[in-house]
Amino acid sequence: MSIVTFRPTPEQYGFTFGGAEPVMRVRPGTVLSLWTEDAYCGQIRSVHDHASTSLTGDGLNPQTGPFWIEGAEPGDTLAVHIVDLTPARDWGASATIPFFGGLTSTPLAPSLQPALEERTWVYAYDRDAHTVTFEAQGSDFAVALPANPMLGTVGVAPADREVRSSLVPDAFGGNMDTPEMRAGATAYLRVNVEGALFSLGDGHYRQGEGEACGTAVEGAMNVTVIVDLIKGGGAGWPRIENDTHLMSIGSVRPMEDAWRASQVDMIAWLRDLHGLDVLDAYQLLTQIAEVPVANVVDTNFSVVTKVDKRLLPAASAYDGVHASLRERAAALGTFTY
Amino acid sequence: MSIVTFRPTPEQYGFTFGGAEPVMRVRPGTVLSLWTEDAYCGQIRSVHDHASTSLTGDGLNPQTGPFWIEGAEPGDTLAVHIVDLTPARDWGASATIPFFGGLTSTPLAPSLQPALEERTWVYAYDRDAHTVTFEAQGSDFAVALPANPMLGTVGVAPADREVRSSLVPDAFGGNMDTPEMRAGATAYLRVNVEGALFSLGDGHYRQGEGEACGTAVEGAMNVTVIVDLIKGGGAGWPRIENDTHLMSIGSVRPMEDAWRASQVDMIAWLRDLHGLDVLDAYQLLTQIAEVPVANVVDTNFSVVTKVDKRLLPAASAYDGVHASLRERAAALGTFTY
Amino acid sequence: MSIVTFRPTPEQYGFTFGGAEPVMRVRPGTVLSLWTEDAYCGQIRSVHDHASTSLTGDGLNPQTGPFWIEGAEPGDTLAVHIVDLTPARDWGASATIPFFGGLTSTPLAPSLQPALEERTWVYAYDRDAHTVTFEAQGSDFAVALPANPMLGTVGVAPADREVRSSLVPDAFGGNMDTPEMRAGATAYLRVNVEGALFSLGDGHYRQGEGEACGTAVEGAMNVTVIVDLIKGGGAGWPRIENDTHLMSIGSVRPMEDAWRASQVDMIAWLRDLHGLDVLDAYQLLTQIAEVPVANVVDTNFSVVTKVDKRLLPAASAYDGVHASLRERAAALGTFTY
Amino acid sequence: MSIVTFRPTPEQYGFTFGGAEPVMRVRPGTVLSLWTEDAYCGQIRSVHDHASTSLTGDGLNPQTGPFWIEGAEPGDTLAVHIVDLTPARDWGASATIPFFGGLTSTPLAPSLQPALEERTWVYAYDRDAHTVTFEAQGSDFAVALPANPMLGTVGVAPADREVRSSLVPDAFGGNMDTPEMRAGATAYLRVNVEGALFSLGDGHYRQGEGEACGTAVEGAMNVTVIVDLIKGGGAGWPRIENDTHLMSIGSVRPMEDAWRASQVDMIAWLRDLHGLDVLDAYQLLTQIAEVPVANVVDTNFSVVTKVDKRLLPAASAYDGVHASLRERAAALGTFTY
Repeated sequence: MSIVTFRPTPEQYGFTFGGAEPVMRVRPGTVLSLWTEDAYCGQIRSVHDHASTSLTGDGLNPQTGPFWIEGAEPGDTLAVHIVDLTPARDWGASATIPFFGGLTSTPLAPSLQPALEERTWVYAYDRDAHTVTFEAQGSDFAVALPANPMLGTVGVAPADREVRSSLVPDAFGGNMDTPEMRAGATAYLRVNVEGALFSLGDGHYRQGEGEACGTAVEGAMNVTVIVDLIKGGGAGWPRIENDTHLMSIGSVRPMEDAWRASQVDMIAWLRDLHGLDVLDAYQLLTQIAEVPVANVVDTNFSVVTKVDKRLLPAASAYDGVHASLRERAAALGTFTY
Repeated sequence: MSIVTFRPTPEQYGFTFGGAEPVMRVRPGTVLSLWTEDAYCGQIRSVHDHASTSLTGDGLNPQTGPFWIEGAEPGDTLAVHIVDLTPARDWGASATIPFFGGLTSTPLAPSLQPALEERTWVYAYDRDAHTVTFEAQGSDFAVALPANPMLGTVGVAPADREVRSSLVPDAFGGNMDTPEMRAGATAYLRVNVEGALFSLGDGHYRQGEGEACGTAVEGAMNVTVIVDLIKGGGAGWPRIENDTHLMSIGSVRPMEDAWRASQVDMIAWLRDLHGLDVLDAYQLLTQIAEVPVANVVDTNFSVVTKVDKRLLPAASAYDGVHASLRERAAALGTFTY
Repeated sequence: MSIVTFRPTPEQYGFTFGGAEPVMRVRPGTVLSLWTEDAYCGQIRSVHDHASTSLTGDGLNPQTGPFWIEGAEPGDTLAVHIVDLTPARDWGASATIPFFGGLTSTPLAPSLQPALEERTWVYAYDRDAHTVTFEAQGSDFAVALPANPMLGTVGVAPADREVRSSLVPDAFGGNMDTPEMRAGATAYLRVNVEGALFSLGDGHYRQGEGEACGTAVEGAMNVTVIVDLIKGGGAGWPRIENDTHLMSIGSVRPMEDAWRASQVDMIAWLRDLHGLDVLDAYQLLTQIAEVPVANVVDTNFSVVTKVDKRLLPAASAYDGVHASLRERAAALGTFTY
Repeated sequence: MSIVTFRPTPEQYGFTFGGAEPVMRVRPGTVLSLWTEDAYCGQIRSVHDHASTSLTGDGLNPQTGPFWIEGAEPGDTLAVHIVDLTPARDWGASATIPFFGGLTSTPLAPSLQPALEERTWVYAYDRDAHTVTFEAQGSDFAVALPANPMLGTVGVAPADREVRSSLVPDAFGGNMDTPEMRAGATAYLRVNVEGALFSLGDGHYRQGEGEACGTAVEGAMNVTVIVDLIKGGGAGWPRIENDTHLMSIGSVRPMEDAWRASQVDMIAWLRDLHGLDVLDAYQLLTQIAEVPVANVVDTNFSVVTKVDKRLLPAASAYDGVHASLRERAAALGTFTY
């Protein structure tokens, strides 16, 4: 089994989807053992570090990658199975950033009101208890919350010659910020350029749906994924499959259109998997969809449409690639890597 | 224990929130044993009944009520605990309605495209298995789905002298169409007019989040609720408490603003319950919120912000009214009514 | 010629569309000579009067009316020709109101940011120069601007048994806040209830498109209109005709849907007037539409689609009612009333 | 006076803002005499050419450029004065394109409805009368409309390392599709990368506000511009100045946020030009803004906020660069080029 390890130096951080030289070429089936810096490039480390003064570098959301996937061509589907996400530090940080977040005006939806107060919260990560601890600053409230490691960004190079900031979620994936992007999930991304140019980053030790203030419990992450390639089949929007659910993720503004995108894509998926016509798939989805919001803070808003596979007759998506990647991931457990 | 039974005749159906004479006056603490007709006023009963020709009556979403709650004054909080929802028929129906629904243009977001095909699906309700069965029309696919009875509408008269159609969700509650409005839940609604003028309706035997095509598995419902009154405390948006979660429901267009409304209300609630300042509550919510979409098809879109009470220190909302209503509901189990 | 004069006492102010008893019954063709109080109910009279403390009354946007129009039935079209708008005071006032306006968070789109500073500006109205003078408060800047008297609200009772606040713009007209509602314009409104229940108010001595801060140069107004009735022909959205333009006004959130509503209605109008099919009308409108925003501050946002009649072959809308009302208005000039 | 002529070959077309090598380097003050192909790359030439079959090439909206402006650095302001726009052909074409446009569902706001019929209209351009003639296809209606030549796209390379399709309007300018971008206008664009990398294209012989169907009367254009550089002063959004008006153009979804962006930028401009504080500028803009919609069809929607300079005391924007470019443009009239 091919296992490739990569830990970027700061000079190797990617701040875009598309537009960067691949850090390496890998074959479909490769296990990637990666490390990815937190969204602040590691610059916010205490409650005294504030975004407006501490974020002095080249960009945010540093990506690990991009990886050139051998054989990937436009229209193909890249499968990225998340084997493991392990916090790489014993703390993560969240912060209010001036004019960034869901409950403040922003440059894309400005008002004349002043910015919210800047505040940084540092969450201790307890590796044994697998918790992160919130400590209030205006009172002595504190609570340990279960960690729920996830990746804010998983993406490929965009179509139409575009290069997008790693802060953007869109049809190419990117900064979708959904807690569904966790260990055990297989992400499916349509390939837009030769080699796919896949990257990931933005580890969150925990995040609620919506990511209201704009930052989760951001932390450097050790990441193990298996990448695989499905010829053809590229869908309109990123999809995720885990053991229980199929998901499609739309990223658009306003949020109802993100919902529409994810629903229409899921209708196409149900149609294909179960031989339904479009109206029947629309009807069925109406009664079974779960719709957790992903983010309402990024340049596009992301909404997830989920279908519980256990409600429906068995059907194998993408020729069962998720199941086989799960098996391969399980086998990895016996390796020490 | 006071149990009041009411089953409206068609002449007694309410089609608005506000603007109708109360059907009766009840004291806080009353158990209401009700029946409510389906959203089609019972006019769609087979796959051959289509909305554009069968819906010939006075309105849609007939309400059972309104009930005048003794002592309710503007600014108070009406608590409606849903004891039981039992399908009143052995079938429910869902339909595509021209220019209504989430994946079609509508009068409020028109295009020049033609309407989708009209199609009606009738779901058999199996009382023993507690399932509803979807039968495709374009193929021979069929699947039994767990029933999940809920109420699309629970509301009071609006503020500002307004009268709104029973199809509208807004700050007064109404047609929020969230699957969270199910047995075991206590809804909290701010009272806007003397007597509150509470009504409910729009039984769904099952609905997915978003209610994509615009209609759930609509069915007449036997409804048992306990109404109670909390003096003062009226919140900006409807809230729900069940044994595990606190929820706030915003209903606005575009959908991000429904999310904002529900988030800001939940931040106020967390602040009050846990003595947090606003920024700390914002931060905490960022990491713990669950955000299931309710509807993307009504005149306003509804988004739910949920917080799992089990993640947080114990805190009693509204002096523990939910717990005490739960106890009273349990005691009702020994009645035959 | 029948001329009816009406000046409401404060007890007669209407604060809703629908839901109020008519102040009088008038026949189609009647000239109404009216006075309407300003949107603040006259409570903001100096730069020291602030909205949060001075607005103590029952409501805002007091309406003059409603008038029962003899013979008006649902589906008919009410024509309201504005003969004259004359400021009734020698000053008007505009104010920032906490959490109201276009460049602040609001209850329907909340943030956690604090409210903007409250400030009131009083504009002297110079009757001879027909100007209103802006005086800055943070500097000694002052400028006289041409007055452009208009009515923020013109509306009828809503459909579907609804009663709406006079702050709402929607398909029934209401608080559209477009500068196009000025002398020389004929508004066409679909009648929804018997008698139409027409009212007007919210005089603005001047307003820019969008009404950014939420309040124009608000002032009591002397209003002369002629009301007329067209049997049938009720359109989906309010329309305006003046000597040069046809207009349709959509009021929805988000704003693109207000635009869509106004465009689709105008396409129907062009189709009817010029015998075009829908696609040809869509194409033609694409090249000739003028689209001034009306308001981005009310409960719905309003967008106007305008077509310059001079670009197109002559075509008589509603059997030439605008032209004949213009003639009648001109004839009024010889009356002293 | 330096006059540079450039007519791209098809191989030189640019399909992005950013990401392309400059076609040449020019000094500030240079007159550029350019030709730009139509948005269809010249592939739609008759009513029988339909978008879905005729648009076979590499991209749409081919740009002429990019030009490297000597000395331009991030934060500077590029001034582009449009001296002349002359249709380069005697016809232009508009077309409905499947799932593209303002009154149809699109990939970013999908529905399940079928696409509108494809239809192409060819407008004869009469050079003497300066008209374009619309000919209906579903009837014998025809009308000659005044030509109003404009550029749909004027832009520079984006910030944040991004490369955007030439179909995108955003803070870097691009596909804003406003009829205000016509001869006599000076566009001001914030420089984001060294050399600015300015390009233009998408000539329209005529377009209404909103560009409802998604395509104007598209036609190849002869373009004369003067480029100039203002050190510093880069604004948040593109601005335009002509002899009578100042304008700011926001491009965001939903449309109210495009409006907000343009309004907030204009408030900053008024503040700077007239020494107003922000609240006074907000108030003044409320009463004087003109707000014509630009496009409701592109990946972002564009809204223009205009202020009539004649209403305000004289104030010189950017040290009078517009006036001096107007003079230089007038002087060009004596050249034969």
